[in-house]
Amino acid sequence: MKQVLLALAATAALSCALPAHAQFQKPGDAIEYRQSGFTILATHFKRVSMMAQGKTPFDAKLAAENTAVMMAVAKLPFSAFPEGSTTGHPTAARAEIWKEADKFREASEKMISEVAKLDAAARAGNLDQIKAAVGGVGQSCKACHDSYKDKHEH
Amino acid sequence: MKQVLLALAATAALSCALPAHAQFQKPGDAIEYRQSGFTILATHFKRVSMMAQGKTPFDAKLAAENTAVMMAVAKLPFSAFPEGSTTGHPTAARAEIWKEADKFREASEKMISEVAKLDAAARAGNLDQIKAAVGGVGQSCKACHDSYKDKHEH
Repeated sequence: MKQVLLALAATAALSCALPAHAQFQKPGDAIEYRQSGFTILATHFKRVSMMAQGKTPFDAKLAAENTAVMMAVAKLPFSAFPEGSTTGHPTAARAEIWKEADKFREASEKMISEVAKLDAAARAGNLDQIKAAVGGVGQSCKACHDSYKDKHEH
Repeated sequence: MKQVLLALAATAALSCALPAHAQFQKPGDAIEYRQSGFTILATHFKRVSMMAQGKTPFDAKLAAENTAVMMAVAKLPFSAFPEGSTTGHPTAARAEIWKEADKFREASEKMISEVAKLDAAARAGNLDQIKAAVGGVGQSCKACHDSYKDKHEH
């Protein structure tokens, strides 16, 4: 267990360092990359969320496997919002992402910290904590989508 | 360093367990998920590959950050090839994936082991080893694409 904790802490530390170095040759590449990260994140979040809602059986090991993937990918999309990356691939990104860059970064950090809480709850195998943390992650997704994501891609 | 090694080993172990549990509600969901995984994998591979080819400056820390992400996502796409997942989203997957399931699994395992070699080389900061391992990863990508990926999505 201690090794797993070390593992996740170190993985998080590695991912942390990424955004500053990230680079995309074309705006469309950044769009595809960030959408890919969100797709993987959402897939694994949904699996944990289904357990939290009692729609699938609760399996502590499986929940923690899913949150481990969430931890590994949560930061990746935010390395892929370079200024002006709104062309070359359909995107629902709103201009406010760059107009309110500080607020957008705060919203992304909020989501990442909520994912970390969910991961801690899943590793503890505590279903009540998982339910609460699923709510926190869901709210952080919604808050950011409400402000920064259009209803349709353009 | 030891902690990072533990981290990567544990992360790999966690991901290993995923395929058996993976589930998608619709075939198109599986297609989007696996394509997302390959997009992230390819993005980070390209960054290391550019360094190996001397097209971008070699930065050992940055190379290892990229291979750490590759390690975290390399297994994910292969949890998303359920039988019959060829509809609901454009895909280049060939029917041979399921007709030759053992061979396809071997090809995926080959790629994953080549990624592990590249990650080891990057963590060691050895550019010559990185160059060799980039070749190995690239060959394993190509071999699988030649057999199992059509030229165009359908």
